[in-house]
Amino acid sequence: MKSNEKVENNGVSRRQMMIGTGALAAGAAMAHFGGLLKSAEAKDGSTEKWPWPYEKLDPAKTAELAYEEWYRVFCGAAVINSVFSQLREKIGEPYKSFPVDSFVFLEGGMVGWGTMCGSNTGAAMVANLIIGPRIAGAHEGHQISEDMFQWYSEASMPVFVPKTPKVTTELVKTVSDSPLCHVSVGKWMKASGFPIGSPERKDRCARVAASNAYHLVELLNDWKDGKYKPASTHAPVKEFGITAQMNCMECHGNNVPTPPMAKK
Amino acid sequence: MKSNEKVENNGVSRRQMMIGTGALAAGAAMAHFGGLLKSAEAKDGSTEKWPWPYEKLDPAKTAELAYEEWYRVFCGAAVINSVFSQLREKIGEPYKSFPVDSFVFLEGGMVGWGTMCGSNTGAAMVANLIIGPRIAGAHEGHQISEDMFQWYSEASMPVFVPKTPKVTTELVKTVSDSPLCHVSVGKWMKASGFPIGSPERKDRCARVAASNAYHLVELLNDWKDGKYKPASTHAPVKEFGITAQMNCMECHGNNVPTPPMAKK
Repeated sequence: MKSNEKVENNGVSRRQMMIGTGALAAGAAMAHFGGLLKSAEAKDGSTEKWPWPYEKLDPAKTAELAYEEWYRVFCGAAVINSVFSQLREKIGEPYKSFPVDSFVFLEGGMVGWGTMCGSNTGAAMVANLIIGPRIAGAHEGHQISEDMFQWYSEASMPVFVPKTPKVTTELVKTVSDSPLCHVSVGKWMKASGFPIGSPERKDRCARVAASNAYHLVELLNDWKDGKYKPASTHAPVKEFGITAQMNCMECHGNNVPTPPMAKK
Repeated sequence: MKSNEKVENNGVSRRQMMIGTGALAAGAAMAHFGGLLKSAEAKDGSTEKWPWPYEKLDPAKTAELAYEEWYRVFCGAAVINSVFSQLREKIGEPYKSFPVDSFVFLEGGMVGWGTMCGSNTGAAMVANLIIGPRIAGAHEGHQISEDMFQWYSEASMPVFVPKTPKVTTELVKTVSDSPLCHVSVGKWMKASGFPIGSPERKDRCARVAASNAYHLVELLNDWKDGKYKPASTHAPVKEFGITAQMNCMECHGNNVPTPPMAKK
């Protein structure tokens, strides 16, 4: 299930441009601490105590659940509920109290605006809800989010094929080279010829959600076993001097701007 | 506080391209119903019963809270907690049990990848948690999300100036014409000359979070009073045949692809 394939995108490598590394320590500079407001405190005191209890899950079963759930709550909430519905049964709280269905809005790169693919946002949410935020001292939630975004960008999607697909024709696979819904769906639509409202496009996105759910559970299981190692190599602020994807030239062409840099 | 200004972005209008409208009814086609998995059920049964109880808040006070919280939890969680910290005091559950700090990962357009600005994701989360998802029958959460994204894209940011700014020099304002972190921050960095790790850039983003919190509360207060009216005019799937922002030419130049369309 892990994608090892090289990204081939019109001969443009994934890391299309790099600017001076080490000029910025913005990552470090962003690490602030100190509580200002009283945050969540559940009756059992558990929702902002990390990690949340986790039991290893079956990736294939989780993927099947995500696939089915896509047709009810769409990509983001499908990924979340594929994991949380199982942990609700196995563990109970705090999973029972988490309002998964509110995250339908992640669909279509957030209410159809084509930004971050909901399957990525959903996966990052699950990792950060279970493991906790970096400001609480654990970094694996942040790292698993980055791994998911990079894995998604490099994978030939959809990776996962459900046991009983709702669309039985074979679906074209494409590499998005981006975590964005617009880019991922657009490249697939171009390669497949299917419009956004087609059953094929919908089933493709349901399978993308399933693919993400599968890989997310692989990473969470590794984390539970104490053998998780971050895989993402994309460090935009450090490398590019700005928050960014890795595909600079895909939007900027050959005219990639140089951001203002910190004095050394 | 509402931004009425025209977007001027090198003479390119916000709605740079339109393709045949009405060819797709994908929005409608996406409306599936029917529960497959048991979803959240809090002990008091409240987290997936919408709307959550809401009391009108003071926009300026909320913005000040978001500004301060940015320096602890960054953009996304700052917007969420600026609203939820007050509702925790005024109302209690389900706000007390919601794990706001897990959403630190929304920073930098999600773990620094420059996609959706966390201040937008945070605002959409608050609207959809309180009002509920469109599949539960209420559409205002979805609509307020769209309004926030469009307002953010068109506003001269940062709009809000805190009472006691941490950076006292006047900050340049820029129009992003996009809800993305990379585009919004990049345009501001270009206009201001300040690098990503500078105190000025950080304070700019803290003020953007505050601006979003202010406008979000304006919309939520209107909704509470029964006088909310959707303002967003961007309907990408219907207009463009694909999930998208409104600034097609900013990435595609004059070579905007035509997506495959549904047969009429």
